[in-house]
Amino acid sequence: MAVRGLDALVVTSLSNVLFLTNFAGSAGILVLTPGKVWFITDFRYVTAVANLRESGHACPDLELVRVNGSYETTLAELLSARGLRQIGFEAAHTTVARHAWLAAALAKSAPGAALVSTDGLVEAVRVRKDQYEIAILREAARRLSGVAVRIMADVRRGRTEREVAMTIDLRIREAGFSAPAFETIVAGGPNGALPHARPGERKLGEGDLVVLDFGGVYDSYCVDLSRTVSIGVASGRAREVHSAVREAHDRAIAAVAPGRSPFEVDRVARDTLGARGFAFGHGTGHGLGIDVHEEPRIARRRPDMGDETLLAGMVFTIEPGAYLPGWGGVRIEDDVLVTDTGVELLTDVTTELVEI
Amino acid sequence: MAVRGLDALVVTSLSNVLFLTNFAGSAGILVLTPGKVWFITDFRYVTAVANLRESGHACPDLELVRVNGSYETTLAELLSARGLRQIGFEAAHTTVARHAWLAAALAKSAPGAALVSTDGLVEAVRVRKDQYEIAILREAARRLSGVAVRIMADVRRGRTEREVAMTIDLRIREAGFSAPAFETIVAGGPNGALPHARPGERKLGEGDLVVLDFGGVYDSYCVDLSRTVSIGVASGRAREVHSAVREAHDRAIAAVAPGRSPFEVDRVARDTLGARGFAFGHGTGHGLGIDVHEEPRIARRRPDMGDETLLAGMVFTIEPGAYLPGWGGVRIEDDVLVTDTGVELLTDVTTELVEI
Repeated sequence: MAVRGLDALVVTSLSNVLFLTNFAGSAGILVLTPGKVWFITDFRYVTAVANLRESGHACPDLELVRVNGSYETTLAELLSARGLRQIGFEAAHTTVARHAWLAAALAKSAPGAALVSTDGLVEAVRVRKDQYEIAILREAARRLSGVAVRIMADVRRGRTEREVAMTIDLRIREAGFSAPAFETIVAGGPNGALPHARPGERKLGEGDLVVLDFGGVYDSYCVDLSRTVSIGVASGRAREVHSAVREAHDRAIAAVAPGRSPFEVDRVARDTLGARGFAFGHGTGHGLGIDVHEEPRIARRRPDMGDETLLAGMVFTIEPGAYLPGWGGVRIEDDVLVTDTGVELLTDVTTELVEI
Repeated sequence: MAVRGLDALVVTSLSNVLFLTNFAGSAGILVLTPGKVWFITDFRYVTAVANLRESGHACPDLELVRVNGSYETTLAELLSARGLRQIGFEAAHTTVARHAWLAAALAKSAPGAALVSTDGLVEAVRVRKDQYEIAILREAARRLSGVAVRIMADVRRGRTEREVAMTIDLRIREAGFSAPAFETIVAGGPNGALPHARPGERKLGEGDLVVLDFGGVYDSYCVDLSRTVSIGVASGRAREVHSAVREAHDRAIAAVAPGRSPFEVDRVARDTLGARGFAFGHGTGHGLGIDVHEEPRIARRRPDMGDETLLAGMVFTIEPGAYLPGWGGVRIEDDVLVTDTGVELLTDVTTELVEI
């Protein structure tokens, strides 16, 4: 903020609000200033914020401002009343409608105040996890690994993808997660060729490969895991595809270390699969944290991207896959932490091809 | 679009995209022009869109455009290549960052093209449900009412709020919903005084009033229902509060008819409770559809609001409540449809105080 000459930063991304305050409600705007934080929320969350302020994880120097009228009017009044001039806002988390309203309101009530577009100020801090966050993510990954083991008994011949997904979601909640981190994927047989298949009414049958991809939110942090299993004895083709993906997965994880490039890790996965005649359209991995998809992206470098470097404290997935239209697919996914010297595997379940 | 002089409307709200195309994926941008619709999506959803186009619910005149590079670059290329000049965008669903990028790209590739801010063009169509949508919402509400009956056996002494919420979510899925429509609320005893309590580790005990508020997504449409039950025999105070909320609920529903004002329906609920010494901070109801909170809002009129009128085909909740800090709360919620002549109750479960 000092570098940008900002008197205040208006934080409207709820993930950024949660990161800065531990507030996990569904509505709130933070106004950050040097030495003071105002938190605007409505009557629904006033008690929650009061409780939070008495906890060990409260945001220091936070003053609660209760919504009067609407969030927008309350924000405009606060900014004017405090005489804030250079006001940063999050361009990626502010709609054109809200920005236009706020600009018009400030032009009346605080002439001379300027709204300054900012990009990724809070995200830049979020990308490296601190010890508090790492402890949560480690525990979350341990619990999700337990879910992966437990659900092997739930993946059975004759059950539909939807029934299995429902059971996985129940197991996720039983393991202490507040919710699944995204819509659980159970994709059997040819459906496995769609990386984002929705679980449907297709019944799992002998010889199917089944992609299972699921995650959980634990203490506001997301973890994510995929395994591909075989119903009955796997065919030679199935073993071949699975073994190629597994090799790509293992090599990509081995390539993770501080100072390395995320593009390079992606290339290792892609080249390994390419050498065996397979390919995948998605990235090799994505950051995990308060959002289930956040920085860093472990993907191909796009033309508009500069260099990027993996740093200690980053947490992300490694999830190469192979997708054969009409036949099926394989994906194997784990969560890793970049340490000071290399990589720590957070999830821990066998990556061998399990035959059910 | 004709009134606004638009050559095209760029639809970035995924709910609006779903309404216009039946596409239910998590990424896509629609470009509407008179007689032609372009749908930009990425490799993950190409097969899903192809399947959709062969179904009976496909959007006519839709042409698939696969993302090349990023969504933004693909959109800019399409708009330039087609020579579109007056380009509407959804101000409430476009971030400042995306707008700035697109404006800069068009300035280079399509000088003379203008981005025109629009507000609620698609939402204005969505607010009145057609027969296709009403049939889905009716069936969804029927199923959710079944869930409300079934869970009475799951709300038991000694179970934690979280355990009961988990079971409700399972029952919602078992009833054919693709997912809960929001985080299920189970708030026992004093927690019932927080309208948006999160289910916690508190065990349900003798004499507790328990607020149960849950919803489901069925064929992409949301329904929502609340009941408040008593663990054991209800106290006189509990009966009094429950009966006041029930009266407000019944009167508000009776006040729903085409041509009436939503503010008036809200006033009926509020006045009924006020006369018995209770109040609530939230609105009396909210529209239901592809979003679980959409137009119309059945709430107090804010100073910046004009007149509003209920119209046949609108679907919304009626959910007055009473909240007594430190003691607990009561909320009773049903979903209603405005018909040509009055109101149809979509959810249908007893509103009497059930003692468990």
